[in-house]
Amino acid sequence: MRTVSTDTITQSFIDYMGEDTDERTRVVLCSLVKHLHNFARETELTHDEWRKGLELLFAAGSISSPERNEFVLFSDVLGMSSLVDMMHSSAEATPSSVLGPFHVLGAPELAVGGDMRGDNDGEAVVVSGKVLSTDGSMIKGATLEIWQTAENGLYSGQDAAQPEYNLRARMKSATDGRYLFSTVRPAPYTVPEDGPVGELLRATGRQPWRPSHLHFIVSAPGHKTLVTEVFPSDDPYLDKDAVFGVRERLIMEYKPDTNHENLPDELAIKSKLADESFFTVNFDFILKTTSN
Amino acid sequence: MRTVSTDTITQSFIDYMGEDTDERTRVVLCSLVKHLHNFARETELTHDEWRKGLELLFAAGSISSPERNEFVLFSDVLGMSSLVDMMHSSAEATPSSVLGPFHVLGAPELAVGGDMRGDNDGEAVVVSGKVLSTDGSMIKGATLEIWQTAENGLYSGQDAAQPEYNLRARMKSATDGRYLFSTVRPAPYTVPEDGPVGELLRATGRQPWRPSHLHFIVSAPGHKTLVTEVFPSDDPYLDKDAVFGVRERLIMEYKPDTNHENLPDELAIKSKLADESFFTVNFDFILKTTSN
Repeated sequence: MRTVSTDTITQSFIDYMGEDTDERTRVVLCSLVKHLHNFARETELTHDEWRKGLELLFAAGSISSPERNEFVLFSDVLGMSSLVDMMHSSAEATPSSVLGPFHVLGAPELAVGGDMRGDNDGEAVVVSGKVLSTDGSMIKGATLEIWQTAENGLYSGQDAAQPEYNLRARMKSATDGRYLFSTVRPAPYTVPEDGPVGELLRATGRQPWRPSHLHFIVSAPGHKTLVTEVFPSDDPYLDKDAVFGVRERLIMEYKPDTNHENLPDELAIKSKLADESFFTVNFDFILKTTSN
Repeated sequence: MRTVSTDTITQSFIDYMGEDTDERTRVVLCSLVKHLHNFARETELTHDEWRKGLELLFAAGSISSPERNEFVLFSDVLGMSSLVDMMHSSAEATPSSVLGPFHVLGAPELAVGGDMRGDNDGEAVVVSGKVLSTDGSMIKGATLEIWQTAENGLYSGQDAAQPEYNLRARMKSATDGRYLFSTVRPAPYTVPEDGPVGELLRATGRQPWRPSHLHFIVSAPGHKTLVTEVFPSDDPYLDKDAVFGVRERLIMEYKPDTNHENLPDELAIKSKLADESFFTVNFDFILKTTSN
């Protein structure tokens, strides 16, 4: 070690590891450190730049709290979160996408056909689809957790004006795998820009917007839980999502619907919609079986 | 972007950067993200491992404060701090080494020959040497900032029992570049183990000790400031420094000295040492000229 040099320090790190180190821990840390060292060598990273990086991490720690995790946001805007998501998505199932920081537990149960819109302003939307298994069957009783922003681009929890659990629900799919609910169209929004992630975005001329989306966690026994989002085809930020969350197969379409007669009877607000214009969205979820 | 994949996400990150992005910022961030993504791809990093990494960063933020920076410590134990130091050391000058978190400003001025030992217990040491320039001249009036642990392995600031600025001093080199002071022998110590860095060390079977050392910052007009440490040749941790700070050329020797007559007259405690055994250390600092 007293002969350590810029060329040998990576090996020194590896040599320091005890023999009893868990094998996977060893593989992950050796790869991480090899890449960090190569980054420093490749860029001939200066002391000032190294200090700047540490400052950003310290600032991320300072602005983080149980309600806000700036490290997750760094991972998101650097593409790490989406890369990990994509690496573990299977081709036959619906792709996963970033969970984001706005999911909460305990949202109210809603029957198939129920209304999540309540008193929210905004364009009415009827969302429906099926939950399927990669084995081809429809999944009955799959749990869908659903959450989204209000028309102002804020989630309940971020916005004191919204009731607790506003635009959040849990639904069990019907016998034929169907789900169905009414809501309002969510809005695009920006990731938080008041911390070091905002500094990074500004320094690189990046826009902080995410396209509007509906969040879903879909789970069923015998299947891998799917954490995902679906995005409308006409969103202006679809090709520049600040957190790289969009996937071709997660794009859905808001279809203007004037045929009120066509709405299913389970739709709780069917009669209300008779006098309104509204959109319909259809999106099916395919869950990967875990039985091997 | 809606066609992003595990193969294209690194390029997507690069494509997101605005045209006006500062060129160096672009180079550093592209390299960083390329290496982070390659790390994730190479290890097929799982969601659980990704979350564990984010947890460690969050924990580092929680335990950090203006007095303690766990991110610097992560950089230290991963070898990043030393790598950056070594990349910017010049072969003809004294190598730099990690600053560490225990430097404070405002330490008292000490004349050449002054005593830093005060009332501290421990083996007496007389430290001396010269400050030289890579152009071959002796540097008069160079500033040496000196700090070290007490015999218990703690720095003043860490240890309520020590007076403020205990075992800390600032000295100006003499006309012939000489510096000289008396002190006690510092002790090895462990890096803080009560945070996520401690968790990392334990998970990889690493020992947390640093060899004992004297810290120096040596600065002079027209020269690059040197931040370094010097280590005794007989320290048991010399070849396993937890933060990779040891360099062959930073090793000095404690020589037992019984020839009290040989001590220079400037040494303030010369007469006190007449009845004591003590060690001498000689170490010269060579600063790189900044004039090109």
